[in-house]
Amino acid sequence: MDGSDDPAPTVFVPGHITAFFSPQPDPDPLVAGSRGAGIALSHGVSLSISPATDSTVVLNGEPTPIQPVASVLRSLDVSAAVHAQTPLPLGAGFGVSGAIALGTALSANARFDCGRSVNELTAIAHRAEVEAGTGLGDVVAQARGGMPIRLEPGAPGHGELDGIPASPRIEYCTFGELSTESVLSGDTEALTAAGEQALSALVATPTIEQLMHGARTFSTDAGLVVTEVQQAIEAVAEAGGTAAMAMLGRTVFAIGTGLSDAGYDPAVCRCYPAGAHLVRDSEHPR
Amino acid sequence: MDGSDDPAPTVFVPGHITAFFSPQPDPDPLVAGSRGAGIALSHGVSLSISPATDSTVVLNGEPTPIQPVASVLRSLDVSAAVHAQTPLPLGAGFGVSGAIALGTALSANARFDCGRSVNELTAIAHRAEVEAGTGLGDVVAQARGGMPIRLEPGAPGHGELDGIPASPRIEYCTFGELSTESVLSGDTEALTAAGEQALSALVATPTIEQLMHGARTFSTDAGLVVTEVQQAIEAVAEAGGTAAMAMLGRTVFAIGTGLSDAGYDPAVCRCYPAGAHLVRDSEHPR
Repeated sequence: MDGSDDPAPTVFVPGHITAFFSPQPDPDPLVAGSRGAGIALSHGVSLSISPATDSTVVLNGEPTPIQPVASVLRSLDVSAAVHAQTPLPLGAGFGVSGAIALGTALSANARFDCGRSVNELTAIAHRAEVEAGTGLGDVVAQARGGMPIRLEPGAPGHGELDGIPASPRIEYCTFGELSTESVLSGDTEALTAAGEQALSALVATPTIEQLMHGARTFSTDAGLVVTEVQQAIEAVAEAGGTAAMAMLGRTVFAIGTGLSDAGYDPAVCRCYPAGAHLVRDSEHPR
Repeated sequence: MDGSDDPAPTVFVPGHITAFFSPQPDPDPLVAGSRGAGIALSHGVSLSISPATDSTVVLNGEPTPIQPVASVLRSLDVSAAVHAQTPLPLGAGFGVSGAIALGTALSANARFDCGRSVNELTAIAHRAEVEAGTGLGDVVAQARGGMPIRLEPGAPGHGELDGIPASPRIEYCTFGELSTESVLSGDTEALTAAGEQALSALVATPTIEQLMHGARTFSTDAGLVVTEVQQAIEAVAEAGGTAAMAMLGRTVFAIGTGLSDAGYDPAVCRCYPAGAHLVRDSEHPR
């Protein structure tokens, strides 16, 4: 197809909260990444693209620089304008930049007939995200969906994934941004040890309860927890629920009705069982 | 939880059409399986279980022997009554037995707090299906969702998957049963060669068009195509569409509106982007 008059295919990519992680650097960005675990969310990024001379991103109506996007488009040898919508805040631990990188890869592949597979597109987005320093494991988790456990770091063919077999309701509140780059460029020794320990425990007992326990221990041991988040975690615990901090953001998330029960007014979504995918395919109409 | 009064969690497992395959036998059922490709369907199996002394399956209200189920429940050291609903016919190439095996594993794990991961539960269902001889690759495809390409055979940790990045509408018509066991126990040399050839071509060009081309060539070269299916494939082609035979069943499936356009009255569903998952979780209510 040349598709010049077709509506661009639209992609949905789930958001992703990282509960805990350990950075796994490597000179090869396809091998680099992180171990850890998290939750793919029904709140995510809806995205479409249109051919354009300059590669740009418009997020919720505002031109927004999303570093990995230009590199994704270059890998596919195309240039395009990316139109993205999301209810999630940027820089608050929801993997929005990873979602836009992965969504751009899927959408551009469909729009320009690039002929790549899902693993190839995931690898392109993972590499772009790692090279930009905006994330280490969101892309592979967002390509999987569900409650991903990242057993080994890296793109498809290098990394290894498992999952927690559950689909809980999720509540979250955000108190502001936390820079992924600044945390990852600092001393990560304590963080790495805490992340590896939480992962070992989760592999032995792959349940929601263990994920949340690991997340709370991790944010404390890694010295990342911030005051508003700590207060919310304690308030949820007092109300009989379970909450933790999203990595890396000033964000608290809870299972079920944890934040509501503690008197907060959270956003509400669910664990999303699918990975990133086309939701409309111009060649194969509904 | 003891959960005695909780409603059993409900699982959804997509149906799965195999477009082409090559059997990959091995003495170890976790290593055995098939290479090939197919489509996970929004028509699938909804399943719940309840504790019971004898392991039984009731499918669409009728007691139905589904061979792998008893073995799945034994692997988890539980016994239970399985209640399953599906719009898909049994024995017609939709992976219903694999769906029930995998759904039983996920549902029993949740109901009895077995503490297994998604990969472990998928491996249990894959092994049960291979040992029963009822399927070779449906379970791993149904755990993934989308349009799975089975690059290497076997359960998680052994097999390797990729996918076609597309989400087409699917139509299908079924003309009766075809026994998986009888085809797989016959001479599979031509079938294996045809399956490997179709896979190589799809890996080079991972698109819907290539999948359908490979499926048509495979069913002819493997000597599996049956008269009613061949007639329908030709009628769809004459109407400008693309259709192929589902392995292993007297079933024809088409992309988009292929069968409708050719004057058939097909069932209509879509490619389903998610793998098998819990849709309700008694511990973590909506």
